[in-house]
Amino acid sequence: MSNITLYGYWRSSAAYRVRIALNLKGLEYQQKSVHLVKNGGEQHASDFKSLNPSQLVPVLVDGDMQLNQSLAIADYLDEAYPTVLLTPLDRQRRYLVKALAQDIAVDIHPLNNLRVLQYLTGELSVEESDKSNWYRHWITLGFEALEQKLARTKGIYCVGNEVSLVDVCLVPQVYNAERFNVDLSRFPVIRELTASLRELPAFIDAAPENQPDAVLS
Amino acid sequence: MSNITLYGYWRSSAAYRVRIALNLKGLEYQQKSVHLVKNGGEQHASDFKSLNPSQLVPVLVDGDMQLNQSLAIADYLDEAYPTVLLTPLDRQRRYLVKALAQDIAVDIHPLNNLRVLQYLTGELSVEESDKSNWYRHWITLGFEALEQKLARTKGIYCVGNEVSLVDVCLVPQVYNAERFNVDLSRFPVIRELTASLRELPAFIDAAPENQPDAVLS
Repeated sequence: MSNITLYGYWRSSAAYRVRIALNLKGLEYQQKSVHLVKNGGEQHASDFKSLNPSQLVPVLVDGDMQLNQSLAIADYLDEAYPTVLLTPLDRQRRYLVKALAQDIAVDIHPLNNLRVLQYLTGELSVEESDKSNWYRHWITLGFEALEQKLARTKGIYCVGNEVSLVDVCLVPQVYNAERFNVDLSRFPVIRELTASLRELPAFIDAAPENQPDAVLS
Repeated sequence: MSNITLYGYWRSSAAYRVRIALNLKGLEYQQKSVHLVKNGGEQHASDFKSLNPSQLVPVLVDGDMQLNQSLAIADYLDEAYPTVLLTPLDRQRRYLVKALAQDIAVDIHPLNNLRVLQYLTGELSVEESDKSNWYRHWITLGFEALEQKLARTKGIYCVGNEVSLVDVCLVPQVYNAERFNVDLSRFPVIRELTASLRELPAFIDAAPENQPDAVLS
């Protein structure tokens, strides 16, 4: 019986990464949904703030480990549950994987987080159309570099023929891109890799629409 | 004779982190300055783009390793040069350090990067004063959470009495905060830790104003 609890939200792409990671490792886990919009955002409630003062999901609890930040969680899971590794043992490949994952998780994703979009349309009175352009701009810029890098590193998956942390970060980022109608026609490598990854049960089971807290209109 | 080359810029806080890390480990390195503003930004020149298509500093070259992303570089340095460790061996502490470092490097810093500020005042026609408020907002929000977390984890330094990756990320972020006149009076823990860290030679030597490419007015 697993002792792992994931505090997340169906549409949070950082939580989506952790779900994929847990699934790839075949780990059972409980999900606790933190609704990022309802009641002004449950991540701001005192219960959740005591778990993570940063008021952001995901948080993973595993026995006496309590951890935020999806990439730190992925590293922890690799150490605690190494049967399937998200970061390869070979040194060249390992740091290639880490850097590519961060190209997504550091350079693209934080700019399009919910709180950032709320600040744009709130404090800065940015129009909805300009907000969407902002969203698309950072994904497109990041994908232009990523497309070139992945063209060199790819096998069946982003880095060779084993699923890695790059794949774990890529699929949620493509999900966001599609949500905001980013033109992906210029990124054939990214599209091809994503199509392969989306056939894997670990990715299917982690998809936002397959979560218990999903609200599909 | 060291074989390490760091492509950076005096004011880039991600490069600043890597300089601190290299200094803490006592590693000699060559610096190549990539001027982020001159000629529309040297990071966009074809020479640098072939090194990192993401057109962002830092990039570290060490023999046959060529690596972008400051946190990936820090992990690499810990593996290749483990005499001084940025992430502690104890598991609880290690993931605490990783998550806190990412609270800065993922949740705060990417929102205030040069290209983001340029997009705000360019494409979105945001006023200079609103740009400064944006800058301060993300640091203040991040520091509010960090102040609470560090109050629990600190010794002389951010996590206990050994310098770690959290310290490596904190000092450059405080440098940015001061540059944009963020009110730090509400963050006594952060101020106290920063004051201790700034006494260490590794941090002094890595400071922006002490770099060969610094332009001080």
